Amino acid sequence: MEQIAGGVTAAKGFMAAHTAAGIKYQSRDDMALIFSEQPCVVAGTFTRNVVKAAPVKWDQQIVHDSPYAQAVVINAGIANACTGQEGMGYCQQTADCAAQLLGISPDAVLVASTGVIGMQLPMERLESGIRGMAPQLAATLEAGSGAAKAIMTTDTHKKEAAVSFTVDGKTVTVGGMSKGSGMIHPNMCTMLAFVTTDLAISKELLQEALSRVVEDTYNMISVDGDTSTNDTCVLLANGMAGNAQITERNQDYEAFVEALLEVNRTLAKMMAGDGEGATALFEVRVIHATTKPEAVTLAKSVVTSSLTKAAIYGHDANWGRILCALGYSGVTFDPEAVDLYFESVNGRLKIIEDGVATDYSEEEATRILTADAVTAICDMKQGTAEATAWGCDLTYDYVKINADYRS
Amino acid sequence: MEQIAGGVTAAKGFMAAHTAAGIKYQSRDDMALIFSEQPCVVAGTFTRNVVKAAPVKWDQQIVHDSPYAQAVVINAGIANACTGQEGMGYCQQTADCAAQLLGISPDAVLVASTGVIGMQLPMERLESGIRGMAPQLAATLEAGSGAAKAIMTTDTHKKEAAVSFTVDGKTVTVGGMSKGSGMIHPNMCTMLAFVTTDLAISKELLQEALSRVVEDTYNMISVDGDTSTNDTCVLLANGMAGNAQITERNQDYEAFVEALLEVNRTLAKMMAGDGEGATALFEVRVIHATTKPEAVTLAKSVVTSSLTKAAIYGHDANWGRILCALGYSGVTFDPEAVDLYFESVNGRLKIIEDGVATDYSEEEATRILTADAVTAICDMKQGTAEATAWGCDLTYDYVKINADYRS
Repeated sequence: MEQIAGGVTAAKGFMAAHTAAGIKYQSRDDMALIFSEQPCVVAGTFTRNVVKAAPVKWDQQIVHDSPYAQAVVINAGIANACTGQEGMGYCQQTADCAAQLLGISPDAVLVASTGVIGMQLPMERLESGIRGMAPQLAATLEAGSGAAKAIMTTDTHKKEAAVSFTVDGKTVTVGGMSKGSGMIHPNMCTMLAFVTTDLAISKELLQEALSRVVEDTYNMISVDGDTSTNDTCVLLANGMAGNAQITERNQDYEAFVEALLEVNRTLAKMMAGDGEGATALFEVRVIHATTKPEAVTLAKSVVTSSLTKAAIYGHDANWGRILCALGYSGVTFDPEAVDLYFESVNGRLKIIEDGVATDYSEEEATRILTADAVTAICDMKQGTAEATAWGCDLTYDYVKINADYRS
Repeated sequence: MEQIAGGVTAAKGFMAAHTAAGIKYQSRDDMALIFSEQPCVVAGTFTRNVVKAAPVKWDQQIVHDSPYAQAVVINAGIANACTGQEGMGYCQQTADCAAQLLGISPDAVLVASTGVIGMQLPMERLESGIRGMAPQLAATLEAGSGAAKAIMTTDTHKKEAAVSFTVDGKTVTVGGMSKGSGMIHPNMCTMLAFVTTDLAISKELLQEALSRVVEDTYNMISVDGDTSTNDTCVLLANGMAGNAQITERNQDYEAFVEALLEVNRTLAKMMAGDGEGATALFEVRVIHATTKPEAVTLAKSVVTSSLTKAAIYGHDANWGRILCALGYSGVTFDPEAVDLYFESVNGRLKIIEDGVATDYSEEEATRILTADAVTAICDMKQGTAEATAWGCDLTYDYVKINADYRS
């Protein structure tokens, strides 16, 4: 497997376009279109929030019922959530408009929205956005990057990743883009992520691979503990790599899962590190836990602790808050067995041994914690299970961004 | 039942003292002592965090095994949590010192600590604090207030409440004090709360009453979602009101529960409203839910949502975040049945009807949300159960306080 440049247009036969439709943001792109030359097998994972945005319901139906998908229309600025029947109608209109221009069926068009909850979409602007994008579709990396920029909301940079690997003598590519900065606590997957591949694979295995990978990537990140109404991750496979279709869980399937994991982990970490107001990516690695679910629960409890996140922002080795967050996670363990390490590009330091502080240097700890990416390693010394979660620090800017997001 | 002035010294036979022992804070009181003339039946509820501070373990043992309790020694500044065997030894030394000075048994002395996790207590200063306080014990309201001030950490004001009512022709008083501003997400009860009464009641019923009341008071508040290692609520009953001892669940018992509920609800709301950095008390009332546990889960999900809390700080009627938080709570409901109201001293406004926005005035909503105490009422229109949770807004100052708490 090799990391390569690009995002949704990296795989063969995928094109993208983007435009400034003026949906809510002014003077910036706010719509993107993804199109595949060939019909795609499609898999998806969606928010488990009871309150589901209209595009989530639309896409769930496409993934479940449509024989294939071929295009995705995305807008930033308005989430089309809590918009009732009117909101569902807008999904249909969007799909109809794109389908007509692209010469495909409306039930091959996925839609996705992100932004403010509760406002209705300005359909005229959305439709003229689609009409503007259709003739501009291009298979270039630039077109993919432009699409990745267009779907941002409070994100500070675009999020793309791609890898290539070999199946059946053919080069296969997996590429994707995502956005997400606030209301990030995926339970599926929060945020929007779009992944494309030219692999030939059965629908059943495509969905299985995606569901498996999402557990260890998007479902392990949190910016603020708020699971969105719009979380969507769709994976399109158009088969244009020319490999014999994968229909069983063989070595090729595992190679694909590994590539998919790499792309989605990269996108997930980018999202966590670019959490609203964040100054640092905060990684929590729980090792030697009793079971995998317990390791997951422990890691998530630390990564979502407001007090721990504020301490990371202050570069303060306030390890008591980490032990405390492990303790209230709901998992039973022996607090007097726990070791804790802080690690970054600036070094690695053992802070707690057997539940009490080592004689560590606060100065050295602060130096480690001033890096852009900081890891806490919690050694439970109980078993062999492990899990990694990603989040970010809690800053003034998080409060600022969210105290007046709508105004 | 009548609300009266005072706190832990309001009930007959209870005395208090306070002093500046210089444990961590300088130039302010940081220790308090409560003493009852007569031995007390004692009940307690404690943190469910797996990581329990030494004083929690000490008090659990006293509540469980001791025939009675008669004194409480409290310090602010250092939590005596994650301090291993050494920390447990300090509890014993504290109890020994107080017991000798007060002429009681060490296993009648409860201890409580709040502050930084992981540091060891400076025992010499603690002991001279106790020696200084013992001769100053007084039954005055001033002594109670002084104790309530001495146990504060990042609190901005003291928290006291008291009521009186009649049992068996005798006036009975229930009074209490508490502290707690950060690491507040009680699962018992977080923070420290000390409640005294002169009621005569059996130990079994005293514990039952406390456990029942804690569920609807301390367990319904959250400042930051972090359940502390030190949460402690103890209730001392010395029987000096002179009523015939309550030994069954009769009308007198219910009158006591009601009085206990009033005192603890008042203390709990004070804690939520004085959450670290808070500018407003945020109350979430869920009505017409299917079951009580579901109502509790829904109310807590909203009150702990970072995005909702930031919006309250910004006086922004960002109701989408409230619907979203109801949606990810884990409770199943029909989003298109939900009504939402905002309410404060400035008025009441219906914001959502049947899951979509009403034609409300943003200006009017902002006016309601600028009050010191703001209520969101979520009408699920499903059944008859209800629950109320209390929290606060998320502010720059929360981040500031917690980014450099230790330094």
